[in-house]
Amino acid sequence: MRAAIIDGKGIAAQMRSENATEARELAEQGWQPRLVSISVGDTAAAELYVRNQQKTAESSGVEFEARNYPETISMEQLVGVLHGLNADPRVNGIIIQRPLPAHIPVKTLQKAVHPLKDVEGMHPSSIGNIVYNDLALGPCTAVAAVEILKTLPLKLEGLDVTVIGHSEIVGKPIAFLLMGLGATVTVCHHMTRSVAMHSRAADAVFVAVGKPGLVTGDMLKPGAALIDIGINRVDGKTVGDADFDSCAEVAGWITPVPGGVGPVTVATLMKNAVLATRLQMAHYRAAFANTEA
Amino acid sequence: MRAAIIDGKGIAAQMRSENATEARELAEQGWQPRLVSISVGDTAAAELYVRNQQKTAESSGVEFEARNYPETISMEQLVGVLHGLNADPRVNGIIIQRPLPAHIPVKTLQKAVHPLKDVEGMHPSSIGNIVYNDLALGPCTAVAAVEILKTLPLKLEGLDVTVIGHSEIVGKPIAFLLMGLGATVTVCHHMTRSVAMHSRAADAVFVAVGKPGLVTGDMLKPGAALIDIGINRVDGKTVGDADFDSCAEVAGWITPVPGGVGPVTVATLMKNAVLATRLQMAHYRAAFANTEA
Repeated sequence: MRAAIIDGKGIAAQMRSENATEARELAEQGWQPRLVSISVGDTAAAELYVRNQQKTAESSGVEFEARNYPETISMEQLVGVLHGLNADPRVNGIIIQRPLPAHIPVKTLQKAVHPLKDVEGMHPSSIGNIVYNDLALGPCTAVAAVEILKTLPLKLEGLDVTVIGHSEIVGKPIAFLLMGLGATVTVCHHMTRSVAMHSRAADAVFVAVGKPGLVTGDMLKPGAALIDIGINRVDGKTVGDADFDSCAEVAGWITPVPGGVGPVTVATLMKNAVLATRLQMAHYRAAFANTEA
Repeated sequence: MRAAIIDGKGIAAQMRSENATEARELAEQGWQPRLVSISVGDTAAAELYVRNQQKTAESSGVEFEARNYPETISMEQLVGVLHGLNADPRVNGIIIQRPLPAHIPVKTLQKAVHPLKDVEGMHPSSIGNIVYNDLALGPCTAVAAVEILKTLPLKLEGLDVTVIGHSEIVGKPIAFLLMGLGATVTVCHHMTRSVAMHSRAADAVFVAVGKPGLVTGDMLKPGAALIDIGINRVDGKTVGDADFDSCAEVAGWITPVPGGVGPVTVATLMKNAVLATRLQMAHYRAAFANTEA
């Protein structure tokens, strides 16, 4: 094996510790960062994920409240709940856990979260601000994947990068983030004629499709960085979208799954919580600076 | 010359005529589409452009009012004007003419236009909606360039496209629009190591940089489509970013400058005006459908 394995857990630990320091500073000014997680109905699918967020929050200096609403709640009631949380100064960020029941479209909820409390970075205006290179709160997984690339000794300006997968919340935001950093980006997907042609030309490859074994070693340029965002269950084991063994023979750096992008994503959520709190503090101060009301 | 020259004026004329029909239908329901153009200070630079918009509006069934404010107006006053227009049911779209004086940042104004009246498609949430493939009002030049590609006998799914230029309002939105249509898109810019390597691999090339002669015939794959979005003045003549003569020898289709993307862009602005009016009508009806208030 030639590839260096990227230590996602180590990167996440460093981020949590920096976060905790920042959160403490905010708390001293009356702005203790605090997240509310919303899940609806049977939570078995999301439970492990929520517990993991809760644990990461604790070590990141962020308070975390998990709320569960019954399956029978209506869309209108749930939007009302979100409006209440938007207006509550004790809540700095709102997480909407998926899956949701069929009668509750996730996009409607995402749009109902105030952009300044949108710690998941899912609101259309959060996404639009990424395009404008004016990054406030970005989608966590995409931001985490790019943060990992930044830890490598590669010059991002002019770097040829191929992103495989063009979902709105992962592939596309990764592409804009990288464009903003000066990379030359190609986005491939299920309609692309030859993914290998594009991936082989790239200095770094991101894959976020949800297909185990999609990327194999022969699809990589020797020495390239491979950031694997896939999370799949195969024979009771969690694996990414890359065939790890063959890719590790060719790549220069590779993220493991688990232990790669995953932990950095949760740490990024907490970083967004701290950033959201800071933005809200600035917004509050601007609003109250005018003593004439 | 082997390339077919794309008739931007003809495409625009067709769009204007369809628009006029739609605008008439809206007017019959009490929703005559109407645009307000805002310019500030000395308008010499924008005047030709505004007059052109006014003329296109007339043949598209859209009312058009050009307002000019003195150079001395403050940012706060201008935002107040925009809020007034947002609240005015007789105004369906707001155009902010550039250039603006230095004390008025264009982004602040763009954010102050209500997303439903953002006929230029510049609001962060308009841009974010493109990423979400939920196109309401898109940035006119980008939408126009993609509309032109759609008129060619090319299958967009799987098409390899290279976009040269990664501005927020042209290059990047073209990239998302094309991704949404199934193309495999590479975005190049001034930091790209070899633009030619990427452009030569593409079935269609979009260029929006503002450098005359940037794209030459040897940078194209034979038979490729070339959509030239550049507008430059050279020796008193208007030219695009492509070296027209050498590109026309190699390309299968090419847009002329002037007479290519330009007229389609202004027609797209009018299409956005009609669409914005339609969205506002739906919004109004939804708000007044609840008789309990």
